[in-house]
Formats: sequence, C-alpha cells, structure tokens
Amino acid sequence: MINRERLAKHIEELSQFGMQSSGGINRFSFTEEEAKANEYIEKLMEEAGLSVSFDAVGNVIGERQGTEEKAPIMIGSHIDTVPHGGKFDGALGVLAAIEVAQSLKDQGIQLKSPLKIVSFKDEEGTRFGFGLLGSRAMTGILKEEELEGRDDQGITLKEAMTQNGYDPEKIGEAKVREVAAYLELHIEQGKVLESENVPVGIVTGIAGPSWKEITVRGLSEHAGATPMPIRQDALVAASEMILNIEQIAFKYKDAVATVGKLQVKPNGVNVIPGEVTFSLDVRDLDNERCAKIVNEISEMIQEVSQKRNVESEIVELQTVSSVQADAAMQATIKEAVVSKGIKPISLVSGAGHDAMNLARICPMGMIFVRSKDGISHNPLEYSSIDDCEIATNVLFDTLVRLDQSI
Amino acid sequence: MINRERLAKHIEELSQFGMQSSGGINRFSFTEEEAKANEYIEKLMEEAGLSVSFDAVGNVIGERQGTEEKAPIMIGSHIDTVPHGGKFDGALGVLAAIEVAQSLKDQGIQLKSPLKIVSFKDEEGTRFGFGLLGSRAMTGILKEEELEGRDDQGITLKEAMTQNGYDPEKIGEAKVREVAAYLELHIEQGKVLESENVPVGIVTGIAGPSWKEITVRGLSEHAGATPMPIRQDALVAASEMILNIEQIAFKYKDAVATVGKLQVKPNGVNVIPGEVTFSLDVRDLDNERCAKIVNEISEMIQEVSQKRNVESEIVELQTVSSVQADAAMQATIKEAVVSKGIKPISLVSGAGHDAMNLARICPMGMIFVRSKDGISHNPLEYSSIDDCEIATNVLFDTLVRLDQSI
Repeated sequence: MINRERLAKHIEELSQFGMQSSGGINRFSFTEEEAKANEYIEKLMEEAGLSVSFDAVGNVIGERQGTEEKAPIMIGSHIDTVPHGGKFDGALGVLAAIEVAQSLKDQGIQLKSPLKIVSFKDEEGTRFGFGLLGSRAMTGILKEEELEGRDDQGITLKEAMTQNGYDPEKIGEAKVREVAAYLELHIEQGKVLESENVPVGIVTGIAGPSWKEITVRGLSEHAGATPMPIRQDALVAASEMILNIEQIAFKYKDAVATVGKLQVKPNGVNVIPGEVTFSLDVRDLDNERCAKIVNEISEMIQEVSQKRNVESEIVELQTVSSVQADAAMQATIKEAVVSKGIKPISLVSGAGHDAMNLARICPMGMIFVRSKDGISHNPLEYSSIDDCEIATNVLFDTLVRLDQSI
Repeated sequence: MINRERLAKHIEELSQFGMQSSGGINRFSFTEEEAKANEYIEKLMEEAGLSVSFDAVGNVIGERQGTEEKAPIMIGSHIDTVPHGGKFDGALGVLAAIEVAQSLKDQGIQLKSPLKIVSFKDEEGTRFGFGLLGSRAMTGILKEEELEGRDDQGITLKEAMTQNGYDPEKIGEAKVREVAAYLELHIEQGKVLESENVPVGIVTGIAGPSWKEITVRGLSEHAGATPMPIRQDALVAASEMILNIEQIAFKYKDAVATVGKLQVKPNGVNVIPGEVTFSLDVRDLDNERCAKIVNEISEMIQEVSQKRNVESEIVELQTVSSVQADAAMQATIKEAVVSKGIKPISLVSGAGHDAMNLARICPMGMIFVRSKDGISHNPLEYSSIDDCEIATNVLFDTLVRLDQSI
C-alpha cells in the first residue's frame, strides 16, 4: 500500500515549479523551471532509495537493484507540460512511480527484477515542436538531424541541449539495452472512466492518428443572384462530407474521426463559398482498420464531390502507427484492478504517450486514472486524490505481480 | 434603334477612369477618378442634348424636356465600382440611358414626358461602407447622421462631401418631388439568362436579404480521447444545419439561402470543435415567405441543437425588405423584349440596386443583361456588345412605350 498523504504532498510540491499566477503551469524542456523540477524529482528518488542518473538527453533515471540478474522493469512518465498546463498530465505518472519505490523501501520489499523509474525528457514537445524526445532517445530512434526545431526565441533544440551541458552528437548513448517490461500510469484525458464510474482503467493500446487535409473547390458566386439548383457551394459539400465522416466513424467501435480545423474562402456573408479546406483526424487501435476507415472516407469524399459538382483533393499530413499494449501486461493490470474490488474497464488511449516508443522494445502496459470532465492540457485538469491513491496502489500491485511472473 | 459602335466606344472610354494595371477598376465616391468619370458623363449627357446638373449629394442628372407638363420618367444607374471591379456593373446602365437620349436626339424623337437620366452617387458603398447613397438622398430617406462612416484613411463621408464642395446639412435638397416611373438597365450578375440562352430579362423584383449570425456552442475535447457517442461537436452540428438550410431553401421556388462565412474554434487538427459561428443570408422576393423561411431555419437549428446536445444562438444582423417591380412596367418591358423576337424571361434580382429606393416613390422596372458565367465585381465581368446593344434597344423601346401609356 502506498502513502496517500505523501503522494498528495508531492503532487502539490511539484506543481509549484513553473506555476503561473493564473494557475496554469509552464514547465518546458531545458528551462530553469524544468531544471529545478528535475532537482526535486532527483531528491524524491534519492529519498526513495534510488540511485539517480541523467542520461545523454536528460531523462532522469532512478534505479533500484533486484535480487536476481535480470533485465529491469521500467516505470515512467514525464514532468514537462503544455503551455498553461495542469498538475497531473505526466507529473502524476512520475510521482506515482516514485511513491511505489518509496513504499517498497518503507515496507522492506525486495523485487527479483531491477527497477528503473524514468522521468522522460520533453514528452509534450511544447518548446521545440518535437515531443517524446526522451523515449525516442532511449529506444534508439532519435536522430541528431531531428534536433533542429526552434523555440519562439529562435534557439534550436540542439543549441538548448549544448547550453545545458548535453552533447547532441552523443544522444545515441541514451539508448537502453534490455527492458523486461514498461509500465506507465497516466491520466486518461477523456471521459470513459468517468462515464463508467471507475477510478482506473486498463489501456488496450495507443491509437496513432492518421491526419489528412481535404480541399473542396466549388464556385464562388453572388449569394443573391445564383439560384440554388446551379450552385457549386464548397461549404455545403464539405458539410455533407463532415456528416458522413461522423457516420462512418460510428460504424466502427472505438474508432474516432474528427474534423477539427476548417477554413472557408472567400468567407463573405453574401458570397457562396468557393473553397473549403478542412482537416481529418482518424484513430483506431487496429492500423489496418484505421486505413480502411480513411479509405472509406476518401471514397465518400469523391462521391459527394461528383454529386455536387465540386472538386476535392486529399493530402496526407501524417500517419502514426497504433501500438498495442501487451496482452499479458493487460491481464496483470486487470488482476491488480480486480483485487481492489474495482470493475476492470479496458479502453484505448487516443492521446500519444512515451509508452508508444517503449512498446517498440518491450512489452508495454498502461494504467489510466479517471480525469474529471475529461479535461486535460488545462489548469482545470483534475484527478481526485482518492483516484490517484487507488491508481498508484494498482501500479504498486501490478509491479509486484509482474516481478513474480517475469 | 441605338448606335452599337458609339455605345461600345463609351463603355471602353468610361472604363479607363480608375483602371488599374491589373485590369480591375477602382472608382470610388468623392475621389479624383470618380470626378473625372463624372466630367466624362457630363460631356456625354450634354452631347445627347441633356441639360446637366449635380444635386446636393452629387448625383449627376441630365434632363430633357417633354412636350407635355408631366412628371418625368427617370432612367438611372451608377458609375462607382467595388474594389477591383469590372466595366459593366452600373456603368452599362448609365451609358445605355445616355445612348437612348442620344438616339432620341439623333432621330428627332420628342417624348410627351420629360426624361431624367441619373448617374447615382455611391451605389456600391465601397469607400465608406454605406451604399445606395444617391438614391437614398433622392428618395428622401438619407439622414445626416448616417454620413459618419469612415474610409481606410479615417475620413468620414461627411468630411469627404465637405472637401468636395457639398454641404452635408443640405442633403435634403436632393429629394425629388414627382417621378412618373423609374427604369434601370443593369447586368444580371447571375447565370439565369445565360442558362436560358437569352440576352435580356425582365426583373420581377429585388429580393432584400435577411442576414443572421448563428453561433453553435458544443464542447472542445481531445480528438483522440473522446469516443464518438459522447461528443458535443459544434462543427458536425453546424454541418447538419448547413445541409438542412440548403434543403429548406430548395423547397421554395426562387428563394436562396447561403452560409457564406464560417469560423471554427479552437480550430486545431486534434481538437473537437467547441464553437462554430456562421452567417445566414436568405432572400425571397416575397417578404412574408422570406420571414417564413428564416423561421423554419431557426426552428430547424433548435431541433438539431437539441438532438446533438449543443447550444445555438441566432442573432439578427439585418433584414432588408424586398421590393416588387411594377406589374405594368414589367408588362411594358416584356412587350419591348417580345418585339425584338426574344423569349421573355422573368427573373428575381438577388443583388440590391438603386431601383430598390426608387420603388418607394414610383413604379419601378428593371431590365437585366446577360452576364458571362454570372461573374461580377471582378475584372472578368463581361456582357457582349451584342447583348448590350439588344438590351439598350429594349430600354429605348420600353421608354417610348411608357411615354405612350403614362
């Protein structure tokens, strides 16, 4: 069992690094606020009996010996934030992992496997527009040429690393050899657990988004002088597409499709829209099914375009592959959840996490914590201390069970 | 019969005042370009035997005596343009009217009624955002306090008037007493005549637009972490409304409804739209039916909002009453059209014209000229000289017939 009061205290203390008068937190990579927060994390790790090191990109790693010579179990998350972020996104995962280590120490529990607790560098990508930095480096997929992103002041990620004593040429050294299993506790950032009325959930996988940009070209004419039957209204065509996109997504359980951005040209009250550009974000845990949905949407867009005498162009922005959580890890988390008398709810993560990268090199499992109103990336982001306590106990229990089975 | 070559020459010559290197015309009220164009119009009017005066707001008026003491027949249009405008919108109507007067003079035709040809001041409202200035003044509905609109340099319409020798306190003097009938020839700015394959058409009335602004408020959430069934997507709701608006307009012959402007918030690829604001422009020649359509749309918006768990607000921007063309004037124009062997096509004007104001004080009739591809407010605006000639002959014939019947 973990210590609820200590966990609550740590959440509150960590939130002060980068806290703005508005209540939002700004804690970006390679800044003074982050450096101070890292010192705080280092101190907590040391108190928890972990030996702390910073790797070649600045991941903070706390290690604990196992009783056997084995590959380590890793638990991680991140402490950087989005602009004006909240207290729980990432931070809760790191503090929960440290709380587990502290509880193991307090209770004199020895694990067979070594344990590594990681606070990953720059998950959000806020400052340089390039996220998941630490987990990319740790899994060996980060390339030096990817460090050219600039912040608002024009400083590149590479320069920021150098200024902070890191050598961009040595990022390869951050790569880890063997990891037995990776666990991450994170807030849900959605409303599934809230609607199911449970404090924690078992993540089945992380759905990578497929992003497209669609441009619909019709004919911009006088709104008063153009009868309805001869119009080529790009916005009415786009509206029909958007409604159909919703219907297509509804056909596939757990899939989501979103049109989040839309622009109309010329955008005048008395002018028929001649051109509409909109974004498409499709996510499904099953990569093949995601491609199938995108395909179905593309065909529908062509059909609507033909019917409405407009032209449409679909441009690929990016497609990120989905990753599955390891089935055995899901089963172990589920056992831990059920052992607390909680109904086990499995759910997909629609948001990306460092766990996506770790899943490339080892079995991965994630525990989600109920988010109030599904809000995140916002000072209103909130998970009750009751839920944080239960989730951290599930993390503790899962680790102990994993250690037995590995 | 009018003189085709002379008309073509005048269209070309007038287009040079304010002509840009790009081919677009900038001729705005109380500017040097407009003053020079007015001098040119004055010269043409004088050549056509008209006695020219400028009234209290700068309408250019050319008068011709009748053989009897009667209220005058008036023919008018305007020579100001939208930014980067074309050669025909307004200009053709003024030049056609002068061509009719010149032809009457050339052929020694005396009319019973006096004739007034008017080039109205500032129909487009480009410079000060306030149009139909001349016809408002002439019909006595212009108020001094309406002259406070400013141009890009911060100059008010009032100041511009004063700088050009007009006294804003005397605009009341522009009001005319009696007009027997008002005729206007104008390009269609639509594609009805083109699709009917006729050079001219008989306007049944001018549909005044009813403008609304609709705001749909849903819930902005993570596009990956929010399952389809629990979304409150403002854009999907707005899309359903836009499709329904089209369907409602289709039910009413000759009505048009347009969503020309739309804005999404927060407008991010991976964020469910939380708020959408869009414009609505509804036009129908029958004011009651227009109100009925707007009402039906409003009810539909509330229904969709309820169904989709979003909130909608409808704000009135403006409602301009439609005006009917005088039935007897329509009949006279129709006789003139048929006498040229042309199939008489009646159509609604979706765009506003000075004729809307004149209809307040006298019987009004309008002759539309076929627009190539329906394009206007653009350098590509075009009506063939064949069509301009036929339409001007219809205007000539209509005037002579009117003079007989009045």
